[in-house]
Amino acid sequence: MIGIDWGTTSFRAFRIARDGSIRDRRAGQRGIMNIPDGRFAETLRDEIGPWLAAGEDRVLLSGMIGSRQGWKEAPYVPCPAGAPELAAALVDIPFDWGKVKLVPGLSAADEAGVAEVMRGEETQVVGVLAAIGGSGLACLPGTHSKWARVEDGRIVGFATHMTGETFSALRGHTILSRMMSEGPADGAPFDAGVQRSGDPGGLLHHIFGVRALTLAGRLAETGSAAYLSGILVGHEVRAALAGMAGAVVHVIGAPDLTSLYARAISACGAYAERHDGEAAARGHALIGEHAAWA
Amino acid sequence: MIGIDWGTTSFRAFRIARDGSIRDRRAGQRGIMNIPDGRFAETLRDEIGPWLAAGEDRVLLSGMIGSRQGWKEAPYVPCPAGAPELAAALVDIPFDWGKVKLVPGLSAADEAGVAEVMRGEETQVVGVLAAIGGSGLACLPGTHSKWARVEDGRIVGFATHMTGETFSALRGHTILSRMMSEGPADGAPFDAGVQRSGDPGGLLHHIFGVRALTLAGRLAETGSAAYLSGILVGHEVRAALAGMAGAVVHVIGAPDLTSLYARAISACGAYAERHDGEAAARGHALIGEHAAWA
Repeated sequence: MIGIDWGTTSFRAFRIARDGSIRDRRAGQRGIMNIPDGRFAETLRDEIGPWLAAGEDRVLLSGMIGSRQGWKEAPYVPCPAGAPELAAALVDIPFDWGKVKLVPGLSAADEAGVAEVMRGEETQVVGVLAAIGGSGLACLPGTHSKWARVEDGRIVGFATHMTGETFSALRGHTILSRMMSEGPADGAPFDAGVQRSGDPGGLLHHIFGVRALTLAGRLAETGSAAYLSGILVGHEVRAALAGMAGAVVHVIGAPDLTSLYARAISACGAYAERHDGEAAARGHALIGEHAAWA
Repeated sequence: MIGIDWGTTSFRAFRIARDGSIRDRRAGQRGIMNIPDGRFAETLRDEIGPWLAAGEDRVLLSGMIGSRQGWKEAPYVPCPAGAPELAAALVDIPFDWGKVKLVPGLSAADEAGVAEVMRGEETQVVGVLAAIGGSGLACLPGTHSKWARVEDGRIVGFATHMTGETFSALRGHTILSRMMSEGPADGAPFDAGVQRSGDPGGLLHHIFGVRALTLAGRLAETGSAAYLSGILVGHEVRAALAGMAGAVVHVIGAPDLTSLYARAISACGAYAERHDGEAAARGHALIGEHAAWA
Protein backbone atom coordinates (compact mmCIF):
# COMPACT_ATOMS: atom_id res chain seq x y z
CA MET A 1 0.00 0.00 0.00
CA ILE A 2 0.92 3.67 -0.12
CA GLY A 3 0.92 5.98 2.91
CA ILE A 4 1.14 9.75 2.54
CA ASP A 5 1.78 12.32 5.24
CA TRP A 6 0.39 15.37 3.42
CA GLY A 7 0.80 18.52 5.45
CA THR A 8 0.48 22.25 5.02
CA THR A 9 3.92 22.74 3.52
CA SER A 10 5.29 19.22 2.96
CA PHE A 11 4.43 16.01 1.15
CA ARG A 12 5.97 12.70 2.19
CA ALA A 13 4.96 9.45 0.51
CA PHE A 14 5.88 5.88 1.46
CA ARG A 15 5.47 2.68 -0.52
CA ILE A 16 4.87 0.12 2.19
CA ALA A 17 5.35 -3.67 1.85
CA ARG A 18 2.88 -6.20 3.24
CA ASP A 19 5.14 -6.74 6.27
CA GLY A 20 5.08 -2.99 7.07
CA SER A 21 8.59 -2.22 5.84
CA ILE A 22 9.17 0.80 3.62
CA ARG A 23 10.00 -0.19 0.02
CA ASP A 24 10.36 3.35 -1.31
CA ARG A 25 9.85 6.96 -0.28
CA ARG A 26 9.35 10.39 -1.84
CA ALA A 27 9.36 13.80 -0.16
CA GLY A 28 8.94 17.37 -1.34
CA GLN A 29 7.40 20.76 -0.79
CA ARG A 30 4.03 20.02 -2.38
CA GLY A 31 2.08 20.68 0.83
CA ILE A 32 -1.54 21.77 0.48
CA MET A 33 -0.59 25.46 0.67
CA ASN A 34 1.62 25.02 -2.39
CA ILE A 35 -0.97 23.37 -4.65
CA PRO A 36 -2.95 25.80 -6.81
CA ASP A 37 -6.65 25.46 -7.63
CA GLY A 38 -7.28 22.32 -5.58
CA ARG A 39 -5.31 20.16 -8.01
CA PHE A 40 -4.85 17.42 -5.40
CA ALA A 41 -5.76 14.48 -7.66
CA GLU A 42 -3.32 15.57 -10.36
CA THR A 43 -0.59 16.14 -7.78
CA LEU A 44 -1.17 12.74 -6.24
CA ARG A 45 -1.09 10.96 -9.59
CA ASP A 46 2.03 12.87 -10.51
CA GLU A 47 3.81 11.91 -7.28
CA ILE A 48 2.84 8.25 -6.97
CA GLY A 49 2.04 7.33 -10.60
CA PRO A 50 4.99 4.91 -10.90
CA TRP A 51 3.96 3.02 -7.74
CA LEU A 52 0.36 2.79 -8.98
CA ALA A 53 1.65 1.53 -12.31
CA ALA A 54 3.68 -1.07 -10.39
CA GLY A 55 0.46 -2.48 -8.93
CA GLU A 56 -0.28 -0.52 -5.74
CA ASP A 57 -3.92 0.53 -5.45
CA ARG A 58 -4.48 1.31 -1.76
CA VAL A 59 -3.59 4.85 -0.66
CA LEU A 60 -3.97 6.35 2.81
CA LEU A 61 -3.59 10.12 3.26
CA SER A 62 -3.00 11.69 6.68
CA GLY A 63 -2.43 15.29 7.72
CA MET A 64 -3.88 18.64 6.71
CA ILE A 65 -5.00 17.19 3.37
CA GLY A 66 -8.07 16.08 5.39
CA SER A 67 -8.83 19.59 6.67
CA ARG A 68 -11.23 22.18 5.31
CA GLN A 69 -8.28 23.73 3.45
CA GLY A 70 -7.36 20.33 1.98
CA TRP A 71 -8.89 17.94 -0.53
CA LYS A 72 -11.94 17.04 1.55
CA GLU A 73 -12.73 17.52 5.22
CA ALA A 74 -12.55 14.35 7.34
CA PRO A 75 -14.45 14.97 10.61
CA TYR A 76 -12.42 14.56 13.82
CA VAL A 77 -12.79 11.29 15.73
CA PRO A 78 -13.10 11.82 19.48
CA CYS A 79 -10.60 10.21 21.83
CA PRO A 80 -10.08 7.51 22.97
CA ALA A 81 -9.11 6.15 19.56
CA GLY A 82 -6.53 3.78 18.12
CA ALA A 83 -5.96 2.15 14.75
CA PRO A 84 -9.38 0.37 14.63
CA GLU A 85 -11.34 3.55 15.44
CA LEU A 86 -9.36 5.59 12.90
CA ALA A 87 -9.80 2.85 10.28
CA ALA A 88 -13.55 2.81 10.89
CA ALA A 89 -13.75 6.55 10.22
CA LEU A 90 -11.66 6.73 7.02
CA VAL A 91 -13.16 9.01 4.38
CA ASP A 92 -13.18 7.81 0.76
CA ILE A 93 -11.99 10.12 -1.99
CA PRO A 94 -12.83 9.54 -5.65
CA PHE A 95 -9.63 8.89 -7.59
CA ASP A 96 -9.49 7.17 -10.97
CA TRP A 97 -6.23 5.29 -10.47
CA GLY A 98 -6.70 3.63 -7.06
CA LYS A 99 -8.57 3.53 -3.75
CA VAL A 100 -7.80 6.66 -1.75
CA LYS A 101 -8.87 7.17 1.88
CA LEU A 102 -8.31 10.05 4.30
CA VAL A 103 -7.27 9.35 7.88
CA PRO A 104 -9.40 11.58 10.17
CA GLY A 105 -7.85 13.77 12.84
CA LEU A 106 -8.57 13.36 16.54
CA SER A 107 -10.35 15.63 19.01
CA ALA A 108 -10.05 15.67 22.78
CA ALA A 109 -10.73 17.92 25.74
CA ASP A 110 -8.08 18.71 28.30
CA GLU A 111 -8.73 18.50 32.05
CA ALA A 112 -10.27 21.99 31.98
CA GLY A 113 -12.60 21.11 29.11
CA VAL A 114 -10.66 23.06 26.49
CA ALA A 115 -10.99 21.43 23.07
CA GLU A 116 -7.90 20.10 21.33
CA VAL A 117 -7.50 18.74 17.82
CA MET A 118 -4.71 17.07 15.86
CA ARG A 119 -4.45 16.08 12.21
CA GLY A 120 -1.56 13.95 11.01
CA GLU A 121 0.06 13.43 14.41
CA GLU A 122 -2.45 10.65 15.26
CA THR A 123 -1.01 8.51 12.47
CA GLN A 124 2.54 9.03 13.76
CA VAL A 125 1.49 8.09 17.30
CA VAL A 126 -0.23 4.96 15.97
CA GLY A 127 3.08 4.21 14.26
CA VAL A 128 4.90 4.01 17.60
CA LEU A 129 2.21 2.08 19.49
CA ALA A 130 4.27 -1.10 19.25
CA ALA A 131 7.23 0.68 20.86
CA ILE A 132 4.97 2.18 23.53
CA GLY A 133 3.70 -1.31 24.26
CA GLY A 134 0.27 -0.59 25.66
CA SER A 135 0.44 2.60 27.70
CA GLY A 136 2.74 5.62 27.71
CA LEU A 137 3.42 9.11 26.44
CA ALA A 138 4.21 10.41 22.97
CA CYS A 139 5.59 13.87 22.22
CA LEU A 140 5.64 15.48 18.76
CA PRO A 141 7.73 18.63 19.12
CA GLY A 142 7.39 21.60 16.82
CA THR A 143 5.68 24.92 16.22
CA HIS A 144 2.72 23.53 18.13
CA SER A 145 4.04 20.56 20.12
CA LYS A 146 1.61 17.76 20.89
CA TRP A 147 1.78 15.47 23.91
CA ALA A 148 -0.45 12.39 23.65
CA ARG A 149 -1.35 9.91 26.36
CA VAL A 150 -1.76 6.30 25.23
CA GLU A 151 -3.61 3.67 27.25
CA ASP A 152 -4.18 0.10 26.10
CA GLY A 153 -3.11 0.93 22.57
CA ARG A 154 -5.43 3.91 22.14
CA ILE A 155 -4.82 7.67 22.34
CA VAL A 156 -6.90 8.79 25.31
CA GLY A 157 -6.06 12.49 25.30
CA PHE A 158 -3.53 15.08 24.23
CA ALA A 159 -2.47 18.68 24.74
CA THR A 160 -0.85 21.28 22.52
CA HIS A 161 2.02 23.53 23.67
CA MET A 162 2.75 26.62 21.58
CA THR A 163 6.47 26.31 22.17
CA GLY A 164 8.02 26.65 18.74
CA GLU A 165 5.85 29.57 17.71
CA THR A 166 6.43 31.35 21.03
CA PHE A 167 10.18 30.90 20.53
CA SER A 168 9.98 32.49 17.07
CA ALA A 169 7.85 35.40 18.29
CA LEU A 170 10.19 36.12 21.23
CA ARG A 171 13.30 35.67 19.15
CA GLY A 172 12.11 37.81 16.29
CA HIS A 173 9.96 40.47 17.90
CA THR A 174 11.24 41.38 21.38
CA ILE A 175 14.22 43.09 22.98
CA LEU A 176 15.84 39.63 23.19
CA SER A 177 16.44 39.52 19.44
CA ARG A 178 19.07 42.25 19.77
CA MET A 179 21.26 39.97 21.85
CA MET A 180 21.13 36.91 19.63
CA SER A 181 23.37 35.83 16.80
CA GLU A 182 23.58 32.55 14.90
CA GLY A 183 24.82 29.63 16.92
CA PRO A 184 24.24 25.93 17.58
CA ALA A 185 20.74 25.03 18.84
CA ASP A 186 22.03 22.50 21.35
CA GLY A 187 24.97 22.35 23.71
CA ALA A 188 25.57 23.92 27.09
CA PRO A 189 23.34 27.02 26.68
CA PHE A 190 20.32 24.86 25.77
CA ASP A 191 20.98 22.63 28.79
CA ALA A 192 21.37 25.68 31.04
CA GLY A 193 17.99 26.98 29.84
CA VAL A 194 16.34 23.64 30.60
CA GLN A 195 17.92 23.70 34.05
CA ARG A 196 16.74 27.28 34.60
CA SER A 197 13.15 26.28 33.80
CA GLY A 198 13.12 24.25 37.02
CA ASP A 199 13.85 27.28 39.23
CA PRO A 200 11.19 29.38 40.95
CA GLY A 201 10.16 32.63 39.26
CA GLY A 202 8.18 31.38 36.27
CA LEU A 203 8.64 31.43 32.52
CA LEU A 204 8.08 35.18 32.06
CA HIS A 205 10.86 35.91 34.55
CA HIS A 206 13.23 33.24 33.24
CA ILE A 207 13.14 34.51 29.66
CA PHE A 208 14.17 38.00 30.78
CA GLY A 209 17.33 36.35 32.08
CA VAL A 210 18.45 35.94 28.45
CA ARG A 211 18.99 39.68 28.43
CA ALA A 212 20.46 39.90 31.92
CA LEU A 213 22.96 37.07 31.39
CA THR A 214 24.02 38.34 27.95
CA LEU A 215 24.54 41.90 29.21
CA ALA A 216 26.57 40.52 32.13
CA GLY A 217 28.78 38.56 29.71
CA ARG A 218 27.73 35.23 31.24
CA LEU A 219 25.98 34.09 28.06
CA ALA A 220 27.45 34.46 24.56
CA GLU A 221 25.26 36.03 21.87
CA THR A 222 25.77 32.84 19.85
CA GLY A 223 24.26 30.85 22.73
CA SER A 224 21.39 33.07 23.77
CA ALA A 225 18.83 31.68 21.30
CA ALA A 226 19.66 28.14 22.47
CA TYR A 227 19.31 29.28 26.10
CA LEU A 228 15.87 30.78 25.35
CA SER A 229 14.90 27.59 23.54
CA GLY A 230 16.03 25.53 26.56
CA ILE A 231 13.90 27.64 28.92
CA LEU A 232 10.79 27.21 26.76
CA VAL A 233 11.28 23.50 26.01
CA GLY A 234 12.08 22.93 29.70
CA HIS A 235 8.85 24.61 30.78
CA GLU A 236 6.90 22.58 28.23
CA VAL A 237 8.46 19.29 29.31
CA ARG A 238 8.05 19.97 33.04
CA ALA A 239 4.38 20.93 32.61
CA ALA A 240 3.65 17.95 30.36
CA LEU A 241 5.41 15.52 32.73
CA ALA A 242 3.92 16.91 35.95
CA GLY A 243 3.46 14.01 38.33
CA MET A 244 5.05 11.52 35.92
CA ALA A 245 8.69 11.40 36.97
CA GLY A 246 10.45 8.39 35.51
CA ALA A 247 8.03 8.09 32.57
CA VAL A 248 9.22 7.01 29.12
CA VAL A 249 8.40 9.59 26.45
CA HIS A 250 8.33 8.55 22.80
CA VAL A 251 9.52 11.60 20.89
CA ILE A 252 8.60 11.64 17.20
CA GLY A 253 9.96 14.01 14.57
CA ALA A 254 12.98 15.31 12.73
CA PRO A 255 16.28 14.22 14.35
CA ASP A 256 17.49 17.74 15.29
CA LEU A 257 14.28 18.43 17.18
CA THR A 258 13.89 15.03 18.85
CA SER A 259 17.50 15.26 19.96
CA LEU A 260 16.83 18.57 21.77
CA TYR A 261 13.67 17.23 23.38
CA ALA A 262 15.40 14.04 24.45
CA ARG A 263 18.07 16.13 26.23
CA ALA A 264 15.37 18.17 27.97
CA ILE A 265 13.25 15.16 28.93
CA SER A 266 16.20 13.40 30.39
CA ALA A 267 17.24 16.55 32.33
CA CYS A 268 13.70 16.70 33.74
CA GLY A 269 13.85 13.22 35.23
CA ALA A 270 12.14 11.12 32.55
CA TYR A 271 13.36 8.86 29.73
CA ALA A 272 13.17 9.64 26.03
CA GLU A 273 12.95 7.20 23.14
CA ARG A 274 13.40 8.85 19.73
CA HIS A 275 11.51 8.04 16.53
CA ASP A 276 11.86 9.68 13.13
CA GLY A 277 9.09 10.86 10.83
CA GLU A 278 8.78 7.41 9.24
CA ALA A 279 6.62 6.56 12.23
CA ALA A 280 3.89 7.91 9.93
CA ALA A 281 4.42 5.03 7.50
CA ARG A 282 4.10 2.46 10.28
CA GLY A 283 0.87 4.24 11.31
CA HIS A 284 -0.45 4.08 7.76
CA ALA A 285 0.35 0.37 7.63
CA LEU A 286 -1.44 -0.37 10.91
CA ILE A 287 -4.51 1.72 10.06
CA GLY A 288 -4.51 0.21 6.56
CA GLU A 289 -4.66 -3.30 8.04
CA HIS A 290 -7.87 -2.42 9.87
CA ALA A 291 -9.47 -0.68 6.89
CA ALA A 292 -12.28 -2.04 4.73
CA TRP A 293 -10.76 -1.70 1.25
CA ALA A 294 -13.61 -3.61 -0.43
CA MET B 1 12.24 70.98 45.05
CA ILE B 2 11.64 69.52 41.60
CA GLY B 3 11.40 65.79 40.87
CA ILE B 4 11.54 64.45 37.34
CA ASP B 5 10.76 60.94 36.15
CA TRP B 6 12.63 61.04 32.82
CA GLY B 7 12.20 57.85 30.88
CA THR B 8 12.88 56.52 27.41
CA THR B 9 9.74 57.95 25.85
CA SER B 10 8.19 60.14 28.53
CA PHE B 11 9.03 63.13 30.70
CA ARG B 12 7.08 63.84 33.88
CA ALA B 13 8.05 66.71 36.18
CA PHE B 14 6.71 67.56 39.64
CA ARG B 15 7.12 70.72 41.66
CA ILE B 16 7.12 69.43 45.21
CA ALA B 17 6.38 71.48 48.35
CA ARG B 18 8.41 71.19 51.54
CA ASP B 19 5.69 68.94 53.04
CA GLY B 20 5.96 66.52 50.07
CA SER B 21 2.74 67.58 48.37
CA ILE B 22 2.73 68.24 44.63
CA ARG B 23 2.33 71.95 43.81
CA ASP B 24 2.48 71.58 40.06
CA ARG B 25 3.11 68.99 37.36
CA ARG B 26 4.12 68.78 33.70
CA ALA B 27 4.16 65.75 31.41
CA GLY B 28 5.02 65.14 27.80
CA GLN B 29 6.76 62.98 25.23
CA ARG B 30 10.26 64.41 25.66
CA GLY B 31 11.77 61.11 26.75
CA ILE B 32 15.48 60.59 26.14
CA MET B 33 14.84 58.85 22.81
CA ASN B 34 13.06 61.95 21.55
CA ILE B 35 15.79 64.46 22.38
CA PRO B 36 18.23 65.14 19.55
CA ASP B 37 21.98 65.69 19.99
CA GLY B 38 22.06 65.21 23.76
CA ARG B 39 20.26 68.52 24.35
CA PHE B 40 19.21 67.49 27.87
CA ALA B 41 20.21 70.73 29.60
CA GLU B 42 18.27 72.84 27.10
CA THR B 43 15.24 70.54 27.35
CA LEU B 44 15.32 70.66 31.13
CA ARG B 45 15.56 74.42 31.22
CA ASP B 46 12.78 74.68 28.69
CA GLU B 47 10.49 72.41 30.72
CA ILE B 48 11.09 73.70 34.25
CA GLY B 49 12.31 77.25 33.57
CA PRO B 50 9.25 78.87 35.17
CA TRP B 51 9.68 76.84 38.37
CA LEU B 52 13.37 77.73 38.54
CA ALA B 53 12.45 81.37 38.01
CA ALA B 54 9.97 81.03 40.89
CA GLY B 55 12.83 80.08 43.22
CA GLU B 56 13.27 76.30 43.00
CA ASP B 57 16.90 75.23 42.68
CA ARG B 58 17.00 71.55 43.70
CA VAL B 59 16.27 69.06 40.92
CA LEU B 60 16.27 65.25 41.17
CA LEU B 61 16.14 63.20 37.98
CA SER B 62 15.21 59.51 38.01
CA GLY B 63 14.78 57.00 35.18
CA MET B 64 16.66 56.26 31.97
CA ILE B 65 18.10 59.79 31.94
CA GLY B 66 20.75 58.23 34.24
CA SER B 67 21.62 55.43 31.79
CA ARG B 68 24.40 55.25 29.23
CA GLN B 69 21.88 56.47 26.62
CA GLY B 70 20.89 59.38 28.87
CA TRP B 71 22.54 62.55 30.11
CA LYS B 72 25.19 60.85 32.24
CA GLU B 73 25.50 57.31 33.54
CA ALA B 74 24.74 56.87 37.24
CA PRO B 75 26.20 53.52 38.39
CA TYR B 76 23.73 51.04 39.87
CA VAL B 77 23.54 50.79 43.67
CA PRO B 78 23.37 47.20 44.91
CA CYS B 79 20.40 46.06 47.02
CA PRO B 80 19.52 46.31 49.82
CA ALA B 81 18.93 50.04 49.42
CA GLY B 82 16.39 52.62 50.52
CA ALA B 83 16.17 56.41 50.42
CA PRO B 84 19.41 57.00 52.41
CA GLU B 85 21.50 54.65 50.22
CA LEU B 86 20.08 56.17 47.01
CA ALA B 87 20.65 59.70 48.36
CA ALA B 88 24.27 58.85 49.20
CA ALA B 89 24.88 57.75 45.59
CA LEU B 90 23.29 60.68 43.76
CA VAL B 91 25.32 61.88 40.77
CA ASP B 92 25.75 65.60 40.25
CA ILE B 93 25.16 67.12 36.83
CA PRO B 94 26.48 70.54 35.85
CA PHE B 95 23.54 72.84 35.13
CA ASP B 96 23.73 76.62 35.12
CA TRP B 97 20.31 77.32 36.56
CA GLY B 98 20.13 75.02 39.61
CA LYS B 99 21.52 71.96 41.41
CA VAL B 100 20.71 68.82 39.42
CA LYS B 101 21.30 65.30 40.71
CA LEU B 102 20.64 61.90 39.15
CA VAL B 103 19.05 59.11 41.19
CA PRO B 104 21.02 55.90 40.51
CA GLY B 105 19.28 52.67 39.52
CA LEU B 106 19.44 49.50 41.61
CA SER B 107 21.04 46.14 40.94
CA ALA B 108 20.22 42.80 42.50
CA ALA B 109 20.67 39.10 41.90
CA ASP B 110 17.75 36.69 41.94
CA GLU B 111 17.84 33.40 43.87
CA ALA B 112 19.67 31.76 40.95
CA GLY B 113 22.30 34.49 40.82
CA VAL B 114 20.93 36.11 37.65
CA ALA B 115 21.59 39.85 37.65
CA GLU B 116 18.67 42.27 37.64
CA VAL B 117 18.65 46.03 37.25
CA MET B 118 16.05 48.76 37.49
CA ARG B 119 16.22 52.47 36.72
CA GLY B 120 13.36 54.77 37.70
CA GLU B 121 11.24 52.13 39.41
CA GLU B 122 13.37 52.40 42.60
CA THR B 123 12.15 55.98 43.07
CA GLN B 124 8.51 54.90 42.68
CA VAL B 125 8.97 52.09 45.20
CA VAL B 126 10.58 54.54 47.65
CA GLY B 127 7.49 56.68 47.10
CA VAL B 128 5.20 53.97 48.49
CA LEU B 129 7.43 52.93 51.42
CA ALA B 130 5.15 54.75 53.83
CA ALA B 131 2.16 52.77 52.53
CA ILE B 132 4.14 49.52 52.69
CA GLY B 133 4.95 50.34 56.28
CA GLY B 134 8.24 48.49 56.74
CA SER B 135 8.07 45.24 54.79
CA GLY B 136 6.06 44.08 51.80
CA LEU B 137 5.86 43.68 48.05
CA ALA B 138 5.67 46.25 45.26
CA CYS B 139 4.70 45.47 41.66
CA LEU B 140 5.29 47.82 38.71
CA PRO B 141 3.43 46.26 35.79
CA GLY B 142 4.34 46.92 32.17
CA THR B 143 6.40 45.80 29.21
CA HIS B 144 8.93 44.47 31.68
CA SER B 145 7.10 44.17 35.02
CA LYS B 146 9.16 44.54 38.18
CA TRP B 147 8.37 42.92 41.51
CA ALA B 148 10.34 44.35 44.44
CA ARG B 149 10.64 42.99 47.97
CA VAL B 150 10.90 45.58 50.75
CA GLU B 151 12.21 44.82 54.23
CA ASP B 152 12.62 47.42 56.97
CA GLY B 153 12.13 50.26 54.50
CA ARG B 154 14.75 49.08 52.01
CA ILE B 155 14.44 47.28 48.67
CA VAL B 156 16.18 43.94 49.27
CA GLY B 157 15.65 42.34 45.87
CA PHE B 158 13.53 42.35 42.75
CA ALA B 159 12.71 40.36 39.63
CA THR B 160 11.64 41.29 36.11
CA HIS B 161 8.87 39.51 34.23
CA MET B 162 8.69 40.03 30.45
CA THR B 163 4.91 39.95 30.46
CA GLY B 164 3.89 43.00 28.44
CA GLU B 165 6.41 42.39 25.70
CA THR B 166 5.54 38.69 25.49
CA PHE B 167 1.87 39.67 25.15
CA SER B 168 2.69 42.00 22.25
CA ALA B 169 4.86 39.42 20.50
CA LEU B 170 2.23 36.69 20.82
CA ARG B 171 -0.61 39.01 19.86
CA GLY B 172 1.17 40.49 16.87
CA HIS B 173 3.28 37.66 15.52
CA THR B 174 1.62 34.28 16.06
CA ILE B 175 -1.40 32.35 14.82
CA LEU B 176 -3.32 33.85 17.75
CA SER B 177 -3.39 37.29 16.12
CA ARG B 178 -5.80 36.00 13.47
CA MET B 179 -8.45 35.38 16.11
CA MET B 180 -8.27 38.71 17.88
CA SER B 181 -10.17 41.91 17.29
CA GLU B 182 -10.39 45.10 19.34
CA GLY B 183 -12.16 44.72 22.65
CA PRO B 184 -12.00 45.76 26.30
CA ALA B 185 -8.81 44.75 28.15
CA ASP B 186 -10.64 43.79 31.32
CA GLY B 187 -13.89 42.00 32.06
CA ALA B 188 -14.84 38.34 32.05
CA PRO B 189 -12.29 37.11 29.44
CA PHE B 190 -9.37 38.62 31.39
CA ASP B 191 -10.64 37.01 34.60
CA ALA B 192 -11.09 33.67 32.81
CA GLY B 193 -7.47 33.86 31.62
CA VAL B 194 -6.24 34.54 35.16
CA GLN B 195 -8.29 31.58 36.37
CA ARG B 196 -6.88 29.39 33.60
CA SER B 197 -3.31 30.23 34.64
CA GLY B 198 -3.92 28.28 37.85
CA ASP B 199 -4.67 25.02 36.01
CA PRO B 200 -2.11 22.32 35.27
CA GLY B 201 -0.59 22.27 31.79
CA GLY B 202 1.68 25.30 31.87
CA LEU B 203 1.75 28.66 30.12
CA LEU B 204 2.70 27.33 26.67
CA HIS B 205 -0.33 25.02 26.72
CA HIS B 206 -2.72 27.60 28.20
CA ILE B 207 -2.02 30.20 25.52
CA PHE B 208 -2.88 27.71 22.76
CA GLY B 209 -6.33 27.58 24.35
CA VAL B 210 -6.95 31.09 22.97
CA ARG B 211 -7.15 29.47 19.56
CA ALA B 212 -9.09 26.39 20.68
CA LEU B 213 -11.72 28.37 22.61
CA THR B 214 -12.16 30.93 19.84
CA LEU B 215 -12.56 28.25 17.16
CA ALA B 216 -15.09 26.47 19.37
CA GLY B 217 -17.11 29.67 19.74
CA ARG B 218 -16.56 29.74 23.51
CA LEU B 219 -14.48 32.93 23.38
CA ALA B 220 -15.42 36.00 21.31
CA GLU B 221 -12.73 37.48 19.06
CA THR B 222 -13.23 40.75 20.93
CA GLY B 223 -12.33 38.98 24.17
CA SER B 224 -9.45 36.78 23.05
CA ALA B 225 -6.69 39.38 23.59
CA ALA B 226 -7.98 40.02 27.12
CA TYR B 227 -8.05 36.25 27.75
CA LEU B 228 -4.43 35.94 26.56
CA SER B 229 -3.49 38.90 28.75
CA GLY B 230 -5.20 37.25 31.73
CA ILE B 231 -3.26 34.02 31.19
CA LEU B 232 0.07 35.86 31.07
CA VAL B 233 -0.62 38.24 33.97
CA GLY B 234 -1.98 35.29 35.97
CA HIS B 235 1.20 33.29 35.40
CA GLU B 236 3.32 36.30 36.36
CA VAL B 237 1.35 36.96 39.54
CA ARG B 238 1.28 33.30 40.63
CA ALA B 239 5.04 32.94 40.10
CA ALA B 240 5.82 36.23 41.87
CA LEU B 241 3.55 35.37 44.81
CA ALA B 242 4.68 31.75 45.19
CA GLY B 243 4.54 30.92 48.87
CA MET B 244 3.12 34.31 49.82
CA ALA B 245 -0.64 33.76 49.86
CA GLY B 246 -2.42 36.57 51.67
CA ALA B 247 0.34 39.10 50.97
CA VAL B 248 -0.43 42.74 50.26
CA VAL B 249 0.98 43.88 46.92
CA HIS B 250 1.48 47.60 46.27
CA VAL B 251 0.82 48.02 42.55
CA ILE B 252 2.26 51.20 41.03
CA GLY B 253 1.48 52.58 37.60
CA ALA B 254 -1.13 53.89 35.20
CA PRO B 255 -4.69 53.22 36.41
CA ASP B 256 -5.72 50.91 33.53
CA LEU B 257 -2.77 48.63 34.19
CA THR B 258 -2.90 48.65 38.00
CA SER B 259 -6.60 47.88 37.77
CA LEU B 260 -5.92 44.72 35.72
CA TYR B 261 -3.13 43.63 38.04
CA ALA B 262 -5.26 44.25 41.11
CA ARG B 263 -7.96 41.95 39.66
CA ALA B 264 -5.38 39.26 38.98
CA ILE B 265 -3.67 39.59 42.37
CA SER B 266 -6.94 39.34 44.17
CA ALA B 267 -7.98 36.28 42.08
CA CYS B 268 -4.67 34.65 43.05
CA GLY B 269 -5.32 34.92 46.79
CA ALA B 270 -3.45 38.11 47.71
CA TYR B 271 -4.45 41.73 48.29
CA ALA B 272 -3.68 44.66 46.02
CA GLU B 273 -3.25 48.31 46.96
CA ARG B 274 -3.07 50.61 43.93
CA HIS B 275 -0.82 53.68 43.52
CA ASP B 276 -0.54 55.97 40.52
CA GLY B 277 2.61 57.25 38.86
CA GLU B 278 2.84 60.20 41.28
CA ALA B 279 4.49 57.73 43.64
CA ALA B 280 7.63 58.93 41.81
CA ALA B 281 7.21 62.45 43.22
CA ARG B 282 6.91 61.10 46.77
CA GLY B 283 10.08 59.11 46.10
CA HIS B 284 11.89 62.22 44.86
CA ALA B 285 10.80 64.08 47.99
CA LEU B 286 12.04 61.34 50.33
CA ILE B 287 15.37 60.87 48.53
CA GLY B 288 15.75 64.67 48.32
CA GLU B 289 15.38 64.92 52.10
CA HIS B 290 18.38 62.63 52.58
CA ALA B 291 20.51 64.34 49.95
CA ALA B 292 23.48 66.62 50.61
CA TRP B 293 22.51 69.68 48.56
CA ALA B 294 25.44 71.75 49.89
